[in-house]
Amino acid sequence: MQQFHHHGYVSGDPRVEPAAGTGLDRPAELPETVDVLIVGTGPAGMIAAAQLAQFPEVSTRIIERRDSRLRIGQADGIQARSVETFQAFGFAGRITEEAYRITEMCFWRPDPDDPSRIVRGERPVDDPTGISEFPHLIVNQARVLDYFAEFAASSPGRVRPDYGYEFRSLQITQGAEHPVTAHLVRTAGEQAGQGRVVRAKYVLGADGAHSRVRDAIGCVPRGDKAFHAWGVMDVLAVTDFPDIRLKCAIQSGSGGNILLIPREGGHLFRMYVDLGVVSPEDKGAIRRTTIDQIIAKANAILHPYTLDVRHVAWHSVYEVGHRVTDRFDDIPLSEVGTRTPRVFIAGDACHTHSAKAGQGMNVSMQDGFNLGWKLGYVLSGRSPESLLATYSAERQVIAQNLIDFDREWSTLMAKRPEEFADPAELADFYVRTQEFPAGFMTQYPPSMIVGEATHQGLATGFPIGKRFKSVPVVRVCDANPLHLGHQHRADGRWRVYAFADGAAPGQPSALAAWAEWLGGSPESPVRAHTPAGAERDSVLDVKVVYQQRHVDIDITAVPEVFLPRTGPFELISYDKVFAAHPEEDIFDLRGIDRAGCVVVVRPDQYVAAVLPLDATEELAAFFRQHLLVADRRPVGGRRPVSDGQPVTGGQPVA
Amino acid sequence: MQQFHHHGYVSGDPRVEPAAGTGLDRPAELPETVDVLIVGTGPAGMIAAAQLAQFPEVSTRIIERRDSRLRIGQADGIQARSVETFQAFGFAGRITEEAYRITEMCFWRPDPDDPSRIVRGERPVDDPTGISEFPHLIVNQARVLDYFAEFAASSPGRVRPDYGYEFRSLQITQGAEHPVTAHLVRTAGEQAGQGRVVRAKYVLGADGAHSRVRDAIGCVPRGDKAFHAWGVMDVLAVTDFPDIRLKCAIQSGSGGNILLIPREGGHLFRMYVDLGVVSPEDKGAIRRTTIDQIIAKANAILHPYTLDVRHVAWHSVYEVGHRVTDRFDDIPLSEVGTRTPRVFIAGDACHTHSAKAGQGMNVSMQDGFNLGWKLGYVLSGRSPESLLATYSAERQVIAQNLIDFDREWSTLMAKRPEEFADPAELADFYVRTQEFPAGFMTQYPPSMIVGEATHQGLATGFPIGKRFKSVPVVRVCDANPLHLGHQHRADGRWRVYAFADGAAPGQPSALAAWAEWLGGSPESPVRAHTPAGAERDSVLDVKVVYQQRHVDIDITAVPEVFLPRTGPFELISYDKVFAAHPEEDIFDLRGIDRAGCVVVVRPDQYVAAVLPLDATEELAAFFRQHLLVADRRPVGGRRPVSDGQPVTGGQPVA
Repeated sequence: MQQFHHHGYVSGDPRVEPAAGTGLDRPAELPETVDVLIVGTGPAGMIAAAQLAQFPEVSTRIIERRDSRLRIGQADGIQARSVETFQAFGFAGRITEEAYRITEMCFWRPDPDDPSRIVRGERPVDDPTGISEFPHLIVNQARVLDYFAEFAASSPGRVRPDYGYEFRSLQITQGAEHPVTAHLVRTAGEQAGQGRVVRAKYVLGADGAHSRVRDAIGCVPRGDKAFHAWGVMDVLAVTDFPDIRLKCAIQSGSGGNILLIPREGGHLFRMYVDLGVVSPEDKGAIRRTTIDQIIAKANAILHPYTLDVRHVAWHSVYEVGHRVTDRFDDIPLSEVGTRTPRVFIAGDACHTHSAKAGQGMNVSMQDGFNLGWKLGYVLSGRSPESLLATYSAERQVIAQNLIDFDREWSTLMAKRPEEFADPAELADFYVRTQEFPAGFMTQYPPSMIVGEATHQGLATGFPIGKRFKSVPVVRVCDANPLHLGHQHRADGRWRVYAFADGAAPGQPSALAAWAEWLGGSPESPVRAHTPAGAERDSVLDVKVVYQQRHVDIDITAVPEVFLPRTGPFELISYDKVFAAHPEEDIFDLRGIDRAGCVVVVRPDQYVAAVLPLDATEELAAFFRQHLLVADRRPVGGRRPVSDGQPVTGGQPVA
Repeated sequence: MQQFHHHGYVSGDPRVEPAAGTGLDRPAELPETVDVLIVGTGPAGMIAAAQLAQFPEVSTRIIERRDSRLRIGQADGIQARSVETFQAFGFAGRITEEAYRITEMCFWRPDPDDPSRIVRGERPVDDPTGISEFPHLIVNQARVLDYFAEFAASSPGRVRPDYGYEFRSLQITQGAEHPVTAHLVRTAGEQAGQGRVVRAKYVLGADGAHSRVRDAIGCVPRGDKAFHAWGVMDVLAVTDFPDIRLKCAIQSGSGGNILLIPREGGHLFRMYVDLGVVSPEDKGAIRRTTIDQIIAKANAILHPYTLDVRHVAWHSVYEVGHRVTDRFDDIPLSEVGTRTPRVFIAGDACHTHSAKAGQGMNVSMQDGFNLGWKLGYVLSGRSPESLLATYSAERQVIAQNLIDFDREWSTLMAKRPEEFADPAELADFYVRTQEFPAGFMTQYPPSMIVGEATHQGLATGFPIGKRFKSVPVVRVCDANPLHLGHQHRADGRWRVYAFADGAAPGQPSALAAWAEWLGGSPESPVRAHTPAGAERDSVLDVKVVYQQRHVDIDITAVPEVFLPRTGPFELISYDKVFAAHPEEDIFDLRGIDRAGCVVVVRPDQYVAAVLPLDATEELAAFFRQHLLVADRRPVGGRRPVSDGQPVTGGQPVA
């Protein structure tokens, strides 16, 4: 939860931040010019919109072909990395309460004594090694989108989707103030069928597997020629299959297989029933498979158990290959570096694959999270346009890895039982590779926003380029045990964590010297990149973690850079000073050198740098790679001091 | 989270339950006749309204003198028992996120070497013995009311406050269908000043310390003659006092004292500055103490630290004594048992005391929670009117205990340092008595809804009459670790927990025999008290906890009474079958006999009975004390099967 009441008493829900900038006078109708036009309100588009809503200097619009919110979506798998991301957007707790939580998975296979019957095999625990403190969930995509929409509408930019607009085509006019001209058509209301032109500085195509934005920038998805087909159904049923409320991979003696995914609410479940590889000559015949045929096939696979389907909430037959585009923006690979991108694609527009590993929505959201803050930084004048080239460079590789993983997993899932050397092979693969589908294998290589691993040894548990894995600490001011990483809201700020050497506050120390430099030196990145008049922690949020127990830390002796003043009353922010938790010491758990160090974390939660406390010039140089010096910036501070929300009961002091 | 999707796919927020009964055609304007009229939207009134909204057979209205929601309230202390209650109403997680959490308290006192200066003394941890798994919070009362309002509006009865009505007086006409005639006046809008008459079956006066409902039924608060005065202020300030973000009791050498309560949002805090006992001759002079005088006094007490107040969100000078009424309903003590009550009072209307123990809002909510379900049961025909007499009988004693505790605590707090034999006396009292202010000392005596302690030895950790203290268990169907008590939603149902003897499901056992009796015997309370056509778990929610690990339980062998069918598709409910958690075994932690037992819990979470598995007649007799036999009931089942919420994407199976 962010700070509140510090500009005066806030009576209502503190999650609703004061409107600011473009959020103060946001036109109800889609305007003719915008900074960012996002096409599509799926997971990739909505997270980007939610992130950009935290940059009220930027005018962001997100259009959707449908005339209202999604009522039922296809995706439902939520990996732990996504729940970690939801935490930053403030809704991990609420969505976890309503979701199905996976704690174990069961593997069923033919009974060796009677292959016509299935029997339970392995039953591995989900995430037995503690990859994440967040759960692995199943919940319909529509609810994920609802929560992102709530965050976007409650953020200073007050971003809300513009429903009823379909994207048709675009042109790029280099050098214009709004270089991208997008041609839209209204799909709903009295003006249905009428064209609309919107000129944007940047366009994000999050418009799905049949993306027209992708086509407009000449990107081509490449991959398999033959597609795999599944019958998928979300149903209510009565069954004697004992594991109907557990995630199961079920292989029958006849070679058919089912992936069973229990769903939120205690009753609904999804079944993927494998319909096999479909050749290009099939010409859609497989799509005529009926729901009755899918149910009959499911019953055959489940034998001796039966499935009495009472209600079908949704079903589909779909074919999908493994396809990925070779770039995620409008710059052909041969022209990378010659100019900066204007149009981006994300999510299914870039990568399509099987649903069986529950990855699609998750990887798509990380696409949008990766791009959102970068657009915010460039458009608010904090970073140079060259930052935007890192989006395609970072994410295209991730998509390729995903395709490779999914091909391996879905091939294994489709194998006939007799093809396995060991019946436990499928479960073994699942357990061995869990870090990947949980979303934590992503590691970005060195770039302008990811440093070299020169000093990785100072914090071995925070691998540079991977997401910052949280550990509990104790907030000194109020003795509250908290997860350090969970204080990282998706507010677009960089985090700088100073891990102290052994001296107590007030003693001469490497930390004290570093803090003095950061607070006072003209070379300090806080000074260089924070605009005049903006809050000192508005670009870099600097926190300290001491090795002592919280009761042994004198907060009045903590360097001032960790206790910045905030708001119109210049109050002291006490929420940046932490002590190691006595039972889960972050120095031990993350291999942090007791001589201290600095860990820099990107706005999208990836570790960007690990440096010694005395490497001040390296720290300053790292930020100069991608942040502009504040006084050169064309646009003012991040968040104007605003009393946007009503204040009640306040009285001036006489 | 309740079950959902079981009547078909629910696209939106599952917290919004389908409207039913009176919620389907609820008049926008206050009608002339209602079942329950609640006066006042404070904590006591709002929780009662929220609870009654779960009884859509009952028409409930709640009126408020103000014209809109409370913007800033006086109460802010939330004891763990209240957070436990919020959990049952679905908002413990959200309010915890935005609240200040107390984990330690600091005691400051005069420096023995220089009594003009204060120094830190004890620093006890809040709840070191694990009285509750819930936190101790501080958050403004207005937010508590917002969450109850959301629950009430999202419940089947769709209860929303009627703002702008003031209660003036009432008359009771015994024998009439709506015996209570309430006279109201509109306070807002075009009709301001106009009178209104509402006839109700029952009236609850939750209209505060100056309650007119109380006066109308001839109740008189009795207690101290002299009142104690405090200056209280919610402020934003800059200070060098190091514990400004910790709850502190501060005693200065000059004898002045402060109670410091940090507040939500990271900056705001409340100070109670003691202004001393005020004699009846003061005639309000103390109330003219200015905010500047309060701030000056606070600075004097804090010496050598200083407090630079930059903004006052709210302040007040108030005087309060220790007062309690001798009954909480309209039946004079001499007439108890001769007729059943029609009018009730709750919260500050019944009990007023100091704010220093942070009790007021909490005890008031338990008043409303206690009464709410009882009104629901009587008005829906589930229980006889005599049930309503238990409200005053149970809660008046609790209020008297509270007054006694608060008198002791506030007397201690007001003592001069030199009056203490031991400087740690105040802190010792605080630590020693923590169960009381945490809200867990309440223990209701035997009555028609609380059994005798004859078999208490079968479950020593579930004291009869105290609230059911939760323990983690594992839900068998999906291997999810859950807190057993947290599955108890505030839906008005009784809970019956069967703790199994050692046999596995499918083996002959005491549990199996009990389950067969409960499911099949004509004597079974499930059969006796569940109306024809209603869901089998609509009155009694029966759950089982096995001693085995969850992987060793064959759910297909579990007795059918624990796997009831639900909804129009007659789906199996799998959410009532649990296994002991291997690391926190409920049998060990709660002293449950390995031969098994039955624990009955009231709708307001208090343990009502502990019985052996073979004491079937005693169990049936207990419920017959306060539940009517279903076929005599004037009104139908609890929750009609309804498709109230839109269902999307559904297809009938061909």
